[in-house]
Amino acid sequence: MFAGAGAAEVPLAMLLIFGFAKLFAELFERMGQPGIVGEILAGVILGPSLLNWIQPNELLHAFSELGVMFLLFRVGLEVKSSELIQVGYTAFLVALVGVIVPFLFGWAIISGWGYGQIEAVFMGAAMVATSVGITAQVLAERGLLNLRASRIILAAAVIDDVLGLLVLAMVSSTAKGQIDFVQIAITAVLAMGFPLIVAIWGTRTLNALVPKFQANLHAGEVQFNVALILLFALSLLAVYAGVAAIIGAFLAGMALAESVSVRVHDLAQGITELLVPFFLAGIGLQLELSVFTDPAVLLLAVIVLIAAVASKLIGCGLGAWSLGRAEMFRIGAGMVPRGEVGMVVAQIGLGMGVIGKPIYAVVVFMAVVTTLVAPPLLKIAFKDAQSAAAEERFGLD
Amino acid sequence: MFAGAGAAEVPLAMLLIFGFAKLFAELFERMGQPGIVGEILAGVILGPSLLNWIQPNELLHAFSELGVMFLLFRVGLEVKSSELIQVGYTAFLVALVGVIVPFLFGWAIISGWGYGQIEAVFMGAAMVATSVGITAQVLAERGLLNLRASRIILAAAVIDDVLGLLVLAMVSSTAKGQIDFVQIAITAVLAMGFPLIVAIWGTRTLNALVPKFQANLHAGEVQFNVALILLFALSLLAVYAGVAAIIGAFLAGMALAESVSVRVHDLAQGITELLVPFFLAGIGLQLELSVFTDPAVLLLAVIVLIAAVASKLIGCGLGAWSLGRAEMFRIGAGMVPRGEVGMVVAQIGLGMGVIGKPIYAVVVFMAVVTTLVAPPLLKIAFKDAQSAAAEERFGLD
Repeated sequence: MFAGAGAAEVPLAMLLIFGFAKLFAELFERMGQPGIVGEILAGVILGPSLLNWIQPNELLHAFSELGVMFLLFRVGLEVKSSELIQVGYTAFLVALVGVIVPFLFGWAIISGWGYGQIEAVFMGAAMVATSVGITAQVLAERGLLNLRASRIILAAAVIDDVLGLLVLAMVSSTAKGQIDFVQIAITAVLAMGFPLIVAIWGTRTLNALVPKFQANLHAGEVQFNVALILLFALSLLAVYAGVAAIIGAFLAGMALAESVSVRVHDLAQGITELLVPFFLAGIGLQLELSVFTDPAVLLLAVIVLIAAVASKLIGCGLGAWSLGRAEMFRIGAGMVPRGEVGMVVAQIGLGMGVIGKPIYAVVVFMAVVTTLVAPPLLKIAFKDAQSAAAEERFGLD
Repeated sequence: MFAGAGAAEVPLAMLLIFGFAKLFAELFERMGQPGIVGEILAGVILGPSLLNWIQPNELLHAFSELGVMFLLFRVGLEVKSSELIQVGYTAFLVALVGVIVPFLFGWAIISGWGYGQIEAVFMGAAMVATSVGITAQVLAERGLLNLRASRIILAAAVIDDVLGLLVLAMVSSTAKGQIDFVQIAITAVLAMGFPLIVAIWGTRTLNALVPKFQANLHAGEVQFNVALILLFALSLLAVYAGVAAIIGAFLAGMALAESVSVRVHDLAQGITELLVPFFLAGIGLQLELSVFTDPAVLLLAVIVLIAAVASKLIGCGLGAWSLGRAEMFRIGAGMVPRGEVGMVVAQIGLGMGVIGKPIYAVVVFMAVVTTLVAPPLLKIAFKDAQSAAAEERFGLD
């Protein structure tokens, strides 16, 4: 009551972003396009590049971050760690080649364009990083998470994140003028150790613990509370280990996949439905179009974009060579979106003063537009898989 | 990935507040006390008055605000507007007498203590305002929303909010030195008209519209998306009409009560479970104990607290005279918590420069401690009602 100053702020932001995201999702679905693209474009339209009704701020950033955490958590709940470990070898190849090829493409383009070596390696590092949120949302929405290609994408995204961290650590220390190999080795051990330990022992531990919690705790929705606490704790540990919070969120979901009830899925789904539009529109909000009045920058952005899409398709595809052309395309398409991840690399470079505004804008453009390109690509890539998966699901339910 | 600066912030805040709130809820339940009290105390302990691990900030404020919005929305989903209108007359009496008595108590105490008239009427206004969130949470948790006393509390809380707004409008304009009767009349019409219109026509409108949306929209969880958009829109309209966002949230839930599926309840429940601890702990976070090193201020705070509890029990109880002593106690107890609402009044007074820091601290103390007192009071008041309600629910399910 007593609506004081600013009392309208929260409901207004919620209404604008959630409402427009869903409106554009609806419009895109009606045009036969993925709704997710509409939600990202809602951010572009509401944001500084067009209407300027909404500016990125701390609150929206937190919502966006929580949104992608819950998205990956919910995806994790549908994945068994044993199934992910099974595809580990292929996923490692996909991630590795899918890191090398984009790095070389990014470095080559920026070097060739006449920039310095530091800017070139930063662009390489920014092109390495897959943001699995977009792909995960598309696959989850279409009920395709059970497919082999989907599992490989998820496992590869985790490994990609670790490799990307190492690339960034090396690039950053190169930029500072000295490479601290001990520090990088510690980073590597932590970043690799954390996901491995959770993937290997997490499920077993929680299969034993969750029934005990259920039997001994009194307050409210016990399983859900335990699940959320694990989600936040592993997200935090992931950050401390050097990888993204969403990796921890995904691992938390996966560790809980076999022990929690359907009710936990439903409750988590509610949060995901509320927050994911903030993640999607939040990507769009980042886009800054004003720098592209310089045609040279625009041309560079388009070249980088094409290289970003092609390099993941080629690199990740090559990593999955043994599975045949259809699977290569699916896996490559799933690794295309860079999203928030490429932007973080560019922000670090900007913060260190080693890359300039134009390169930053080019990275953001590449990061946003790869997320827009991915859903239609995935739609084509998974066309044949869709009907098979639908049958499979009916069998399982 | 690439955890940049501040990447730990969001998961850390989530883990600390959600984790501690649930830990204390569990401890309190084990001691036979309401878990909700534990969650508020978690905020007191983590906050500036004790550990100072967490300071109130914009993000937590937004989470808290959304938490109580979703709480009231979920409560609204379980209430039919026709049933609320049925108890409208009694609820009006409860609200009216429950506004007059606390106002007089607050004014008398502060006047008698030697403060000026302006501070006295502000204290009166701060003691008027019931924060229904705490009561709603207790009643919802215990499955008591179907009882007559619960309906009267909810309807009276809406009316109380409108009356409180008018009291504040008059008090503020008195403090400014001139009472603008036209402005107050417009405020009254808007503030009364908005809930009335939604309560009377909302359900009918949505019963007609929701099936149409369901049939014609394509994107995702249609009913849930429509429900959330209505929730944010009515919360915003409520703020524009001068009442609290939570009144709009409650009305949105109520308008949808007859038209949405159980799935919408479950999805909304997930969000509520996540965010309500931020609302509860957020109340505790506000408490500032440092000012109470002055024993005179502490004594005043205790007197105001006792008066705040007694005046709502007496005032609201008197309003429900016709229903007998047991119902009088239930309804009075339900209207005791002031929570965030009393604090907003005090903030306005502080902002206008008409009340001082000690009075502000006393109001916050009263607001926080009445929320701590209410759950045990409600437990006693609804003791006999609990078993009857449980039977009723089993019959309904």
